[in-house]
Parts: sequence; structure tokens; C-alpha cells
Amino acid sequence: MSEKVGVAIVGSTGYGGVELIRLLASHPKAEVTSVISSSSAGELIADGYPHLTEICTDALDGVDPALIKSKADVVFLATPAGVASKLAPAYLEAGLKAIDISGDYRLRSREQYEAWYKKEAAPQEYIDRAVYGLAEIYGDRVRGADFISNPGCYPTATLLGLLPAIKAGYIDPATIIIDAKSGVSGAGRGASLGTHYSELNENFKAYKLNKHQHIPEIEQTLSDIAGHPVVTTFTTHLVPMTRGIMSTMYATVKDGRTTEDFISLYRNFYEGRKFVRVRKAGVWPGTKEVWGSNYCDIGFDVDDRTGRVTIVSVIDNLVKGASGQAIQNLNLMMGWDETLGLHFVPAYP
Amino acid sequence: MSEKVGVAIVGSTGYGGVELIRLLASHPKAEVTSVISSSSAGELIADGYPHLTEICTDALDGVDPALIKSKADVVFLATPAGVASKLAPAYLEAGLKAIDISGDYRLRSREQYEAWYKKEAAPQEYIDRAVYGLAEIYGDRVRGADFISNPGCYPTATLLGLLPAIKAGYIDPATIIIDAKSGVSGAGRGASLGTHYSELNENFKAYKLNKHQHIPEIEQTLSDIAGHPVVTTFTTHLVPMTRGIMSTMYATVKDGRTTEDFISLYRNFYEGRKFVRVRKAGVWPGTKEVWGSNYCDIGFDVDDRTGRVTIVSVIDNLVKGASGQAIQNLNLMMGWDETLGLHFVPAYP
Amino acid sequence: MSEKVGVAIVGSTGYGGVELIRLLASHPKAEVTSVISSSSAGELIADGYPHLTEICTDALDGVDPALIKSKADVVFLATPAGVASKLAPAYLEAGLKAIDISGDYRLRSREQYEAWYKKEAAPQEYIDRAVYGLAEIYGDRVRGADFISNPGCYPTATLLGLLPAIKAGYIDPATIIIDAKSGVSGAGRGASLGTHYSELNENFKAYKLNKHQHIPEIEQTLSDIAGHPVVTTFTTHLVPMTRGIMSTMYATVKDGRTTEDFISLYRNFYEGRKFVRVRKAGVWPGTKEVWGSNYCDIGFDVDDRTGRVTIVSVIDNLVKGASGQAIQNLNLMMGWDETLGLHFVPAYP
Amino acid sequence: MSEKVGVAIVGSTGYGGVELIRLLASHPKAEVTSVISSSSAGELIADGYPHLTEICTDALDGVDPALIKSKADVVFLATPAGVASKLAPAYLEAGLKAIDISGDYRLRSREQYEAWYKKEAAPQEYIDRAVYGLAEIYGDRVRGADFISNPGCYPTATLLGLLPAIKAGYIDPATIIIDAKSGVSGAGRGASLGTHYSELNENFKAYKLNKHQHIPEIEQTLSDIAGHPVVTTFTTHLVPMTRGIMSTMYATVKDGRTTEDFISLYRNFYEGRKFVRVRKAGVWPGTKEVWGSNYCDIGFDVDDRTGRVTIVSVIDNLVKGASGQAIQNLNLMMGWDETLGLHFVPAYP
Repeated sequence: MSEKVGVAIVGSTGYGGVELIRLLASHPKAEVTSVISSSSAGELIADGYPHLTEICTDALDGVDPALIKSKADVVFLATPAGVASKLAPAYLEAGLKAIDISGDYRLRSREQYEAWYKKEAAPQEYIDRAVYGLAEIYGDRVRGADFISNPGCYPTATLLGLLPAIKAGYIDPATIIIDAKSGVSGAGRGASLGTHYSELNENFKAYKLNKHQHIPEIEQTLSDIAGHPVVTTFTTHLVPMTRGIMSTMYATVKDGRTTEDFISLYRNFYEGRKFVRVRKAGVWPGTKEVWGSNYCDIGFDVDDRTGRVTIVSVIDNLVKGASGQAIQNLNLMMGWDETLGLHFVPAYP
Repeated sequence: MSEKVGVAIVGSTGYGGVELIRLLASHPKAEVTSVISSSSAGELIADGYPHLTEICTDALDGVDPALIKSKADVVFLATPAGVASKLAPAYLEAGLKAIDISGDYRLRSREQYEAWYKKEAAPQEYIDRAVYGLAEIYGDRVRGADFISNPGCYPTATLLGLLPAIKAGYIDPATIIIDAKSGVSGAGRGASLGTHYSELNENFKAYKLNKHQHIPEIEQTLSDIAGHPVVTTFTTHLVPMTRGIMSTMYATVKDGRTTEDFISLYRNFYEGRKFVRVRKAGVWPGTKEVWGSNYCDIGFDVDDRTGRVTIVSVIDNLVKGASGQAIQNLNLMMGWDETLGLHFVPAYP
Repeated sequence: MSEKVGVAIVGSTGYGGVELIRLLASHPKAEVTSVISSSSAGELIADGYPHLTEICTDALDGVDPALIKSKADVVFLATPAGVASKLAPAYLEAGLKAIDISGDYRLRSREQYEAWYKKEAAPQEYIDRAVYGLAEIYGDRVRGADFISNPGCYPTATLLGLLPAIKAGYIDPATIIIDAKSGVSGAGRGASLGTHYSELNENFKAYKLNKHQHIPEIEQTLSDIAGHPVVTTFTTHLVPMTRGIMSTMYATVKDGRTTEDFISLYRNFYEGRKFVRVRKAGVWPGTKEVWGSNYCDIGFDVDDRTGRVTIVSVIDNLVKGASGQAIQNLNLMMGWDETLGLHFVPAYP
Repeated sequence: MSEKVGVAIVGSTGYGGVELIRLLASHPKAEVTSVISSSSAGELIADGYPHLTEICTDALDGVDPALIKSKADVVFLATPAGVASKLAPAYLEAGLKAIDISGDYRLRSREQYEAWYKKEAAPQEYIDRAVYGLAEIYGDRVRGADFISNPGCYPTATLLGLLPAIKAGYIDPATIIIDAKSGVSGAGRGASLGTHYSELNENFKAYKLNKHQHIPEIEQTLSDIAGHPVVTTFTTHLVPMTRGIMSTMYATVKDGRTTEDFISLYRNFYEGRKFVRVRKAGVWPGTKEVWGSNYCDIGFDVDDRTGRVTIVSVIDNLVKGASGQAIQNLNLMMGWDETLGLHFVPAYP
């Protein structure tokens, strides 16, 4: 009989769900004991995802809390916005620990959520209970918590790239501009003109200018760290590739800080945190350098001519930007080493 | 016997050169009478570019001015940086009109050129003689000129997107930040790790931060239009696609100008100039929407929360960003309608 | 007032329809006078296809024959299977010439159509009336006809690559095996998991083995040319690219024919037909060498060790495989030069 | 001190080398103790491959046998053709076990090697000593051997797809035709026009028709299994993607065998061999379904009309087609479970 902690995945037929299956397959202390889909319960997951043939042979379960509790100790919610707001409370009440990968518990204000997501917000008491699991920043809060709200993909790349500089006063928060780019998998598996191959291949597009629901999430944490309200310009683009996010960030530098100052600051800040890697001067990371792994790689360039710093931060949106960081949070919740089961070397080329 | 104006292309074995051949094939008043390559003289161009089989059956000529003059009235220089600086004067002295697609005559200051290009600058008198052919802005100067310096790909997308707003005082030039992205063909046909398929596919990279040689070119014209020196932050990225450039530009808005104000301003500014298309509010162009054509498409979004405008400008880097604009300049030089032979509908999808 | 022949496009919001618009924009003797969509009548085509902004400013018409007849002399049907079977008869009865780009009139046998297409076949009399417009083979029949059934994309690449060899007895028809590959645009604009970017990017898939509806179309013409029934193995694959088809074809060579024999045979066979280009020995075409153009490029290799020839044939599926060949057929129908308005140089790179 | 077996990688700066580093990073019984490059000795591997930052911090060693022997028990040769033929004998004489991933020891005949590879062959005695490590077929020979010649990428996909049917007499070996397609990473990291992004993106090409050096390797094993000489038609194509090979194979079926017969045969044949997965009828694998993993997935379709079977076999060329199978052979050599350290779930999407 297995000694591993059983985990259930609600939303197993989405990209976040199958990525959890991929990553957890080699976890030394946790194992997937239930794969769950409201729409496809009873079917075999490998019928929809043949890459899981002979790897995940279970039939899909339904979303019932009691059933899940009988099979698992922890539940991941890898569901579209508006689902976890309804399901998570029942899972918590059933005694499960829960990690929500959607945006339903990230914003502390229900009004903000409803304004940006155009959906009904989750109950305030559960929002208040959720710990925002930006692991390298709030890991201490995650340890011992039973309900984690996993950060969004863009906010993860962006905040890990900005927070040390804000905290140390190296940049002026009012001047921050974030130009972000994502691979298409961030849009999920739903078929639409917006995810159609012939429309996106050999194309580079901007979308949702000044309307993306990750804006309030980014600003909430920027403001927390800055100690005062911060509003920011944040633009999202679609890159003709499947995985990867880059946030290119601009801000006015204070006190004449140099590229080397930024590099030193970030290396110190993230010391001991294996998943953030800081590049040396004159080199900036490409998204492929973290493909398939839980790394966030960051590079810098301060321009004396303009007095601005450019910060480049990359992640794999499905790993560090979703399922990988969720497992990192599982590790922290359970009191394990945060890197457990996450030693994936980026797949290059 | 043909009544068409004969044109010669120096650098016919580069991407800019073959794109000139493609575009000029249907020009009603000009025809390619000599394809020229210093390295491959005597060979058939279709041996290196089989897509030109039975279309361009000429052997490649050498770079000799007298030979070219005997075959053509106008010469295009589609050569790497540092070549036209040496060749163009002799062509002009031989009585040819010349259009240089490289960067060798774009910067008025030889010191600037040598600092950014790390090559010896062209003779000052020829730099002074060259007209900067940003057609929608300086078309009047191009008419009747005999030597045109064709703008760079990034500067074309960027300047067409910024200049009307600067001229009208809608934005503060000191706040401009330009986040630019290009397909790989901009790097030319030379084989290197930087153009290697497996390194670039499914990858998104930033490069040459604050060091790109298009920075002084952009600033030179921004300053001219602003009427005072402008320095700017300009970042370049490589997109896993072949053609297309997007410049996403940020600036602080003055006097409460709205998205609709920008749209009206630009529509008026570019009235009668067929190759600039302004999108309506809430829509921004993707690079594929101009693929293979001479269009520059522009969209806007003013954010009340931040007081900034985001401007999105796209071109095909090989057409409007190089060979297409060069033909537009040929048309202007010759006193023809600027759109002659350039009615290419974007190839979509 | 225009002297051009007016053409209407039914199915203007599909990829075949917008490609007709792109190609016809520079046609010297025909012009699009009505763009038609049953589902989007009244809307502006540029709202769904922003690349047509300021190029095609017409509102979409409905499918009514009298309306079309009032605006046009010729109608193209660029509709999904099962639509032209119902619409085309009324257009013909209204006095329009018609070119059907779908498969509805390609198979002479209604039973065959219904078995492979799983839809009700068109009326037999209209099937009988339709001329199969494989232009380089049946151009003489197309001249003067009023109803053309335009060949499928795979059949075009395949048949142009095989027919001369069969006709000349260079290969044994019983041994033909066709391994075909297509870009994704062949699947149309409909959103589905099968056209989803993240599912197809960095993926190569086989589909519809031995079930593709182009099999009977290929066999019908192979049999006609061979003079006896031919069955063949035909496999289709999806390539992670937008445009392009390659058919790699295998057959046992008769009478010791060599690579050079095949090259000579095909060059003679297609002499004077501008859109077929035969490569020299040791070189085979890639799909990009015909991208955006109406060419079909063909290469050969006879292997003495096995006694088989490998024939490689490429086209742009949206041009020679659909809209381009349809215009070629329009030219032939109207008694014009078949190349009119089709001198597109492939867009490379 | 580590109890793991030390392994050295010669050719660490190639794609095969870095893939060995990725895969071995999580191996429970082996660890990389020396990374070796003749051209870059002394440099840090992460300088050329930033994705290995903080993962592989060693400086590159030179190719000296004594040095390697002092650090490792087993050496992998992930070198271009013509290198292992010279290096491997010295490594073996130094007492190292060796696994050659190149083609230098695959062909039993030196004449064949020199005819197809155009290089001097390895010494005959070492060729004779090398065991051809097609693990699922010759695993018994690999156990206990000290020198393995790892199969080529195309031969692996092809032979695993054909051998059971030949052995069981289900197909006629004389009729086999193999149409193979590969991602670009198979061409290695060397920069050339043939690996240039803009030349390959949105392009599908055939290459080396009837001349590929994997032909004699495939025929050697086909002949061994058939019990008589087999010659075969084998075509290679380049797909615009980084990883993945598909072999689509055709043969005439004997004795009326059906699709289900093939499926049963292969399931029985590969029973207990975890890395071969057989698809059910009506479904065929895509390359992405094995991306990043050591699987070879196979599907079938028998066509009654033609009496032929189509067999579709896919692998990741860098894993099962190179470094993954090499580790599988390491496991077999060492007497370990062949799946050790190779439980990678395909990365999808």
C-alpha cells in the first residue's frame, strides 16, 4: 500500500490538469488518486489525451466532495474562472486541503473580481481564507495553510521580476510598464477562432489592452510590497508558440543603480530559492530556456541614456505559471522541501 | 522593346533582394534588368532560390558601376551594413539614381553611425545628399531626389506609429517606451546559431537591449519632429515566425486625449496615404494582417487609470520595412503614384 | 464604368473565399462585384478579416440567384461540401457561369459521393454537366464550358505528379502509393480541436487513413488516364504550417526509365503550361517554393536498387489547390490566357 | 560519496549530449560526472546552453581516455559521424564501457559505411564487438555487453514498426515503402542554410532521396529478421518543428491479415516492454504524443481495397531516437530495469 499523499485533480481534461498529471508522475511523496471532470466523468482520460496511454488508465470521476475525500487528501482545482468559486468551499468543508489554480480567490475584493472577471465572486470568507501562493514571496504563509490560491501565469513572471526592486527602492513603482507575451496554451484547450492554428501561426497579436484580468492581481501585490497603491500599464500579446511567457518590464531607476546592482540584489533576494535564476549582465533569458521546467529566469539592463531599467522575466506558463507552482505550494503546505518532484531540466531544444 | 525603367538590384541573393524581385515582377513601369551579387556573380539566382525557377532566369552580374549603368537607370542596394557606404558614391557618380536599403546613410552623424554600427561611416557629402525615405512623412523630399536612404524595419513601424501624436502634442516624448518584436527574416539569410531553427522555434527572446543600431535612427526622427532632443527606451525581441514586426509603444497622454482622439488624429494625418490603415477602437492589428503587403496598420488604447496610451503598429518587415517601401520611394522619385505596383493584398491566412 | 467581368463569391468568409479576393484584386479582366455569405449577410467582410480593411469594403450579400445575377456573370462557390450541390443548379439556371471549388461535382457517381462524403449527392444532370477543371490536363474541355468542378487540393498535387508517367507507361499504376502532407489551412476556418493551435504546433499527425474523400477523386482520374480501374493507397498528414501540400508518390518503374527520362517526359508534357515547373535531377521542391503562387513544382528520383521512382509534387493548397486554379479555370472558360492575373511570385521566405 | 555509476558524455555541446544531461539528471543509479567537448574544453556548458544554468555547473573536459576513466565507468559518444570511429577503441581499451550514439558502428560492413557515410570506417574488430542496441529487439544481447552501437533515429521508429510484422510473415518485405518525416533537431546544432529558421519555417521539404545513410542500417536489420536480403524505398522529409519523427510505412499484407490482427500481434510482441505503445483501431499517433519521452507509439490500418497495410510509428528523435534509448541500453548493460530513470510523461501540449 502506498504511503504517498493522495491528490485529486478537478479539471483533468484541461491543459493545467494534464500538466499536473505529467509533473506529479515522478513526485516522491504525492500521487494522483483521482482525475476528475464534470463534463467527461466515466470516460478514460487517455481517450482524449493519447499521450497518457498506459500512463493514466483511470476513468474520470465526478466532482462530488465525499467521493474525492474518500480518495484524496488534497484537491487541485484546474478549472476555468467561475468554477472554483462554487466548488472549493465544499471541498474545504469536507476536510480536503485545496489548491485553486484559477483566478477565483486571488483578488481580495469581490468587487474587483466581478469588475474584471465579469462573473460572480466567491464567498468573502473563503477569499479571506485563501493564501496567495506566490511561493518565493509568500512561502511562509503557505506553510501550514489548507487553502491556496495559485497565482496567475502573467503575475508570476511579472511579480518575481519586479518585487525585489520595489522592496529595495531601486525603481519608481509609478513608472512601471509591463509588456507581456504568452504562448497559446495559456488560452486553454477550448476551440475558438482565437486558438485556431491558421489564425495564430506566423502571426503576433496584442489582445485585451488594459482589460486583462491579471492587471488587478498584479497591482494588488505591487501595492502590498510598495506600501501604497500602484497602478500599472500591462499589455498582453500572443506568440506563435505553445508554451512560455516573457514579461519585459520597464521602470525608472532610482539612485543611479546599475545593471550589476540589480543582479546582486536579485541574487541575494532569491538566495536558496532554487526556481529563480538570475542571468549575468549582457544576457537575457529566452522562454525556451525554461520550457517544461519550474524555473523563472530573469535578466536586466540599465540604460544610462534614459535612466530606465529593462527587466526580462520568463517562465513556462503551464509549469511555474500554473501546475508546477501549484505543486511547489503543495510541497510547502505539507512541510516538504519546496523542490520535491520538481527537478525538471528544461527541454532544450 | 520595353518602355519600362530598368532597375538593378545589388545584393540579390539576400532576402531584401529576392523580395524586390517578387514585388517588382508585377510593377507596371519598372522592371528588373540586372540582378547583382558580389559573391555569386555568374551563377543563376534560381539555383540558390528555386522559387524563382523560370521567373528570374538571369545570371548574377558583378557590382561594376559601368555595367550597371549600361543596363539600368536606378539601382537598389540591398546589402549588409558597410557595403553601400562604399558602393553608392560610385553609382551616383555613374549617373544612376540609388536607393539604399541598408543603414549606411540613415544617420546624419558619422560619429553616431560608427558608435552604433561599429563600422566606418560613408563619406559625409553622400550622407548629406541622401534623403531619408520614410515615405508617408518625407515623401515631398523624396520626389525628385536621386539618392534615397530607405528607413529601417523597426524605425518604419515605430515612427509611423508615433510621429502624428508627437507632432500634435498628444503625448510627452520624454515618456516614450518602445517594445518591438520581429520575425526572424529580419536577421537575413546568413546561417548562425542566432538564426538556427531549433534554437528559435517555440522560443521568444529579447536581444541587443539598449544597443540596437535602430535606436539612433528612431531618435533622430523623433527629435526632428519634436523639435528638441528625444532619447527613448527601445527593446527588440525575436518571434518564432518568419515575417512581421510589431512595435508596442507607450507614452503619457497630454490634455486628456482619448482613444477616439488618437484615431481621428491619425486618420486625418494619413488621409490619402493608402499604406497606413488605422483600426477602430477596441481592435489592434496582428502582424499577419499585413503579411506580404506594404501596409502599416495601427491601433490605439488610452487607459484612464494610468494616463498612458498604448500604440500598436505592425508591418511586414521585408515589404513596408524594406523592399516595399523602397519601391514606394522609387515611385515617388520617378514622380509616379506612390502605390504603383504595390497593391498587394495581405496573404491571409 | 468598368469593362471587367463581374464575379461573385459565395462563401466569402472561408479561407477559399478570401483567397479569391486576394488573387482577383489584381486581375486585369475580372473583378469581384459581390461577396456572399449565407451566415453573415449584411456584415462587413473586413470586420471578420481585418487584413481586408479598406480593400474590400462591401457588405456581404445573401445567396439569392437573382441578386447575384444582377451583379455578376460568373459565380465561384467556395463553400463546404454539401452546399454547392444545392445552390449551383439555381445559379446555372439563372444564367450564371459557375465554378465550384467544393467536392460536390467532382465524382461522376452519386453513389461514390454519398459513400465517401456521407452527404446527399448533387443532381446527376448537373454532375454530368460539370467539367472537371484540372487545368493542365483538361483545359480544352474547360474552354467554353459554363460549369466547372474545381479539383481538390490533394488531387491537384497528386494527379499533376502522376498523370504524365501513367500516360507514357513509365510506371505501373497498380503499384502507386501516395503519401501526402498538408498545412492546416486545408481544414478551413472552423474552430475545432482538430484545428487548435496548441494541439497542432510542434506536432505531425496522420489522419483519415484510407478514408479520405479525395481517394475516389484521385482514382477516377488515374483510371481515366490509365484506361482501366486503378485503386491506390493514399495517406494524409497534417504539417504544423498554414499553407502547402506535398505529395510524395511511389511507383514501380517500367522499361528501366531513369530520373532523366522522367524529367524529359514531364518537361515535354507540360511545355507551354506556365504553372508546372520541373526540377532538375538531385533537387526536389519544398512547399515554400510555391507559397502564395499558382505553381505546381515537381521533382523525381529513380532508385536502381529498388526499381521504384519517387515523385515529389508541391502546391499552395489555397492557390493551385483551390482559388488559384479556379481563376485559371475562369480564364480558360472566358477564352483568356490561362495565366491572366496569376503571375504571383512565391513569397519566399 | 555517491554510490551512483559515473557516466561521461563526449559531445556534450551537441543536442544529443544536452539531452543526455536532461534525462540523466533524474536517474536513480547513474550520474553525469564528466561533460566533454573537444572544441570547447575548459568552458562552462551553461555559457552555451543557458537552460543548464545552476544545473550543470561543470567546466567541459577534453576527450582524453585516462581522464575520463578516472571520472567515469561508462562513456556516451554523442558525436558527429566519423568521431567515435576514432575515439571509441581507446575508451574501450581504457576499460570504459561505451555507448556510441553516432552511426560509426552500426553497419557490419566497412564498405557499406564508407559508401553511404563518405568517411573512413571504424576498425573491423570494434565494429564486430559493438552490439546494435535496438533495445526492444536485441535487449538480450545488450545485457552484459560493454560496447553498444545505439540505433539511428529513423531506424528506431521504422524497425520497431516493421519487425513484428516481418517476423510473423504478415507482410511481404519486398513491398515495403517507408515515408519518414523528422523535426529539425535531427540535423544537430551546426548552423547552415539547411537549419536556418526562415528557410524551414512554414516549409515542408524532402531531402536525400534514396541516399540517406540510414537506408543500409534499416535494410541490414530488415534482412536479418526476414532471413534474406531486403532492399527498401526510404524517403526523408523535414517538418517545421523541432522534435519528433514519424515513419509512415506501406506493405502488401499476406493471408488476409486485418488491422486487428496487426494490433494483436504487436501488443503480444511488445508485451512487457513499456516503451512501445500500440494504438487501437482507427487511431494513429501524432509525434507530440511522445514528445520528450522514450515512447514509440504505433498504429495500423489495413485497406481491403488495396490489400496494403499502413503502419504509423512515432518517436521523439532526441529521446527514443538517440539519448533515451542510449540510457535504456545503459540500463540493460548494467543489468538494471530498462525503464530506470526514463519514466518521462510526454509533454503535452
